[in-house]
Amino acid sequence: MENGSKRWGFRANKSLGSSSSITVRGVLNLLVGSLNKEDTREVVPLAHGDPSAFPCFRTTPVADEAVVDAVRSAKYNHYSPTVGLLPARSLFFVSCIGIVAERDLAVGTRKSQMWSFDGFSNLSVADYLNRDLPYKLSPDDVFLTLGCTQAIEITLTVLAQPGANILLPKPGFPYYEARAAHSHLEVRHFDLIPENGWEVDLDAVEALADENTVAMVIINPGNPCGSVYSYQHLQKIAETAKKLGIMVIADEVYGHLTFGNTPFVPMGVFGSIVPVLTLGSISKRWIVPGWRIGWLVTSDPNGILQESGVVESIKGCLNISSDPVTFIQGAIPQIIDNTTEDFFVKINNILREAADICYKKIQDIPCITLPHKPEGSMFVMVKLNLSSLEGIDDDMDFCHKLAKEESVMLLPGTAVGMKNFLRITFAIEPSVLEIGLERLKAFYERHAKIQ
Amino acid sequence: MENGSKRWGFRANKSLGSSSSITVRGVLNLLVGSLNKEDTREVVPLAHGDPSAFPCFRTTPVADEAVVDAVRSAKYNHYSPTVGLLPARSLFFVSCIGIVAERDLAVGTRKSQMWSFDGFSNLSVADYLNRDLPYKLSPDDVFLTLGCTQAIEITLTVLAQPGANILLPKPGFPYYEARAAHSHLEVRHFDLIPENGWEVDLDAVEALADENTVAMVIINPGNPCGSVYSYQHLQKIAETAKKLGIMVIADEVYGHLTFGNTPFVPMGVFGSIVPVLTLGSISKRWIVPGWRIGWLVTSDPNGILQESGVVESIKGCLNISSDPVTFIQGAIPQIIDNTTEDFFVKINNILREAADICYKKIQDIPCITLPHKPEGSMFVMVKLNLSSLEGIDDDMDFCHKLAKEESVMLLPGTAVGMKNFLRITFAIEPSVLEIGLERLKAFYERHAKIQ
Repeated sequence: MENGSKRWGFRANKSLGSSSSITVRGVLNLLVGSLNKEDTREVVPLAHGDPSAFPCFRTTPVADEAVVDAVRSAKYNHYSPTVGLLPARSLFFVSCIGIVAERDLAVGTRKSQMWSFDGFSNLSVADYLNRDLPYKLSPDDVFLTLGCTQAIEITLTVLAQPGANILLPKPGFPYYEARAAHSHLEVRHFDLIPENGWEVDLDAVEALADENTVAMVIINPGNPCGSVYSYQHLQKIAETAKKLGIMVIADEVYGHLTFGNTPFVPMGVFGSIVPVLTLGSISKRWIVPGWRIGWLVTSDPNGILQESGVVESIKGCLNISSDPVTFIQGAIPQIIDNTTEDFFVKINNILREAADICYKKIQDIPCITLPHKPEGSMFVMVKLNLSSLEGIDDDMDFCHKLAKEESVMLLPGTAVGMKNFLRITFAIEPSVLEIGLERLKAFYERHAKIQ
Repeated sequence: MENGSKRWGFRANKSLGSSSSITVRGVLNLLVGSLNKEDTREVVPLAHGDPSAFPCFRTTPVADEAVVDAVRSAKYNHYSPTVGLLPARSLFFVSCIGIVAERDLAVGTRKSQMWSFDGFSNLSVADYLNRDLPYKLSPDDVFLTLGCTQAIEITLTVLAQPGANILLPKPGFPYYEARAAHSHLEVRHFDLIPENGWEVDLDAVEALADENTVAMVIINPGNPCGSVYSYQHLQKIAETAKKLGIMVIADEVYGHLTFGNTPFVPMGVFGSIVPVLTLGSISKRWIVPGWRIGWLVTSDPNGILQESGVVESIKGCLNISSDPVTFIQGAIPQIIDNTTEDFFVKINNILREAADICYKKIQDIPCITLPHKPEGSMFVMVKLNLSSLEGIDDDMDFCHKLAKEESVMLLPGTAVGMKNFLRITFAIEPSVLEIGLERLKAFYERHAKIQ
């Protein structure tokens, strides 16, 4: 202090300071620093999964008005209960069952359009839907969270035991690695196979697992790959996990955002084979990531998660965590009741159009190759062919120079576990996407190796 | 599972399952189980600090409309930046400086009514206010959090180092103990002295601290005691902390909720003596605990928190945590600009009236004694005189039986670290408070020991 000699007895948890380098947000913050302020063109944001700023991706006014009504009612200014408000939990539960009923899509009987059922908020609908299921879910299986982010945080905190390890996909979503490191949970990576539509390498999963393995994570529809897994592949995942005695954590934050030939099948369908923790959110489907409402659902008709203490730990962890905003929970029934199918169809149509643009334009850019056309989510992974470029060291260097020279933001594959790949977000206004990909092409042409 | 013999390789983090017993929420959940469903009278909630359900404590419509405007603008559906939106941070910063200017209250020069300054959201106001301060704050010193809860979580996570310990008040707010346990941060308790208006026992603080002590926590205005510390006492706390080389964590979630003779003085005033982390929220002053907007502010003109890596760790921790809802952050400027002083005066007047009712009625109930009349926050601590009662084992037993027989919820002192005390919330509609205290008296009369 005054004399500069005072010794202060505290120092910070240094491991936290470095975490900024291993999240998408952290990498983006670094790339923003490379943007050229002299460039008067608009920045094209192809690096992050948040299209909410684009008018064509604006959420339905139905959702806005549900929130407005909830705020003005003054009924939801209070603290939230630990696990969330019951009506919202019931509806997510119904929606979850509705989703489960979609398994029929895969076998030909369409029972979908769950969001527009008449009398949807009536719990007897749940009972009705339950009749066709191999097991019953209840609202008690649903825990509300602060977006999918907190659902991941809670899950990894609950599973972190001395010596335990968890299997994560590569490429994947680096928030899992960051939270696992924070909780001292060992991670092991299994590959997703580009040539097989980024399916899980199940042999690798079997080879990696040991008696300390607690779970494997799948992200479906896929981030960062845009893949959508078939009913058959998900069933194989369930059977492998069962064989290994581990649970499946199914990150379905991009659930229902599909526009290819493979329908979305929720992992919960296989809950009677293997205990499933499903993580989800309204962030992507309603395009409101800033609203912070998500969920964690246990699909476990055999009660294994209850028996092993996982359910009790989830509640304990939620008890010492922050809750989603109460009035947004209060708005959920009205949001779900009033959002009609055409909103979802419109969003998926824009995503399909954007994915097509992305697919076509990439064929014209020799320095990147697309292993698999995206069928869902908001992203695609492309391989960077460094040999076709002059003076580019790696994916990180590519993205820094691209940001600087073309004001285009791309996510280096390193950030999602695959060096010399790039993750491209196509979930932006299609005309802006075209501009971004044209600039990418110009960048290539300027840096192409002369053969 | 079909054969029941499958061994599942996971088990949960058991320490989480038990955390429900050491938070206010956890204890309340237990007490709710004791309520008699046959009792047709309304439950009187004297146990928790959330008066938002009572019409007289309804937040200002100005706040509702600010949120409505932010939602409808569709400008805030996106993810939040790690540290929060700049306009909100700037305003909390201004408010913090405005608060700091209130130190003058303590020495006679009134510069308050900071919330109703003309042109308040203009940053030059900050510059103006800064001129009179011993040091300058900037918006960079302000981090937005999910209510004060997450500010506590972040702070304790950042300070948790192997071997480190932190000094907490007794009685206090059990969430500190729960989060410290979760982060393996050792806690040591110093007493608050009832006869001295629940001031900190500074000799005890000096005796407890060692070279591994990182910080001491004060909650001012006080939860659970209703105390408000004088400028002089806060200065002594700062000087003691400086001598020990530890920082002060000032929980000011009840900041400005004062109605006695002692004005609220923010700890940040003493930032040039000792580094201060101020934790706060709009939850209590605007009576909207379900909105989940709080802050963590560093008052540290000597840059000690920067140097020791604490600031970097705070950012790292926020980077892997959920953020406050973006549209509520977006509403903050309008909420602060448009809320007028009369709303705050009204709330404080109701609290004063309720505290007076509480004070008077308690004199008529021989089984409880009030060591100090509350001057702030929403609570008072009373001592339970078990010797005047028949068949009551302790504070927990008292609260269970009171819930069962009278449908009155009180918080056992055990939950806040003081066995055989009770925490009474007076922040409810005054007429309901009177009913609750009359039932408490009837309960006493039925259980009084015959002399």
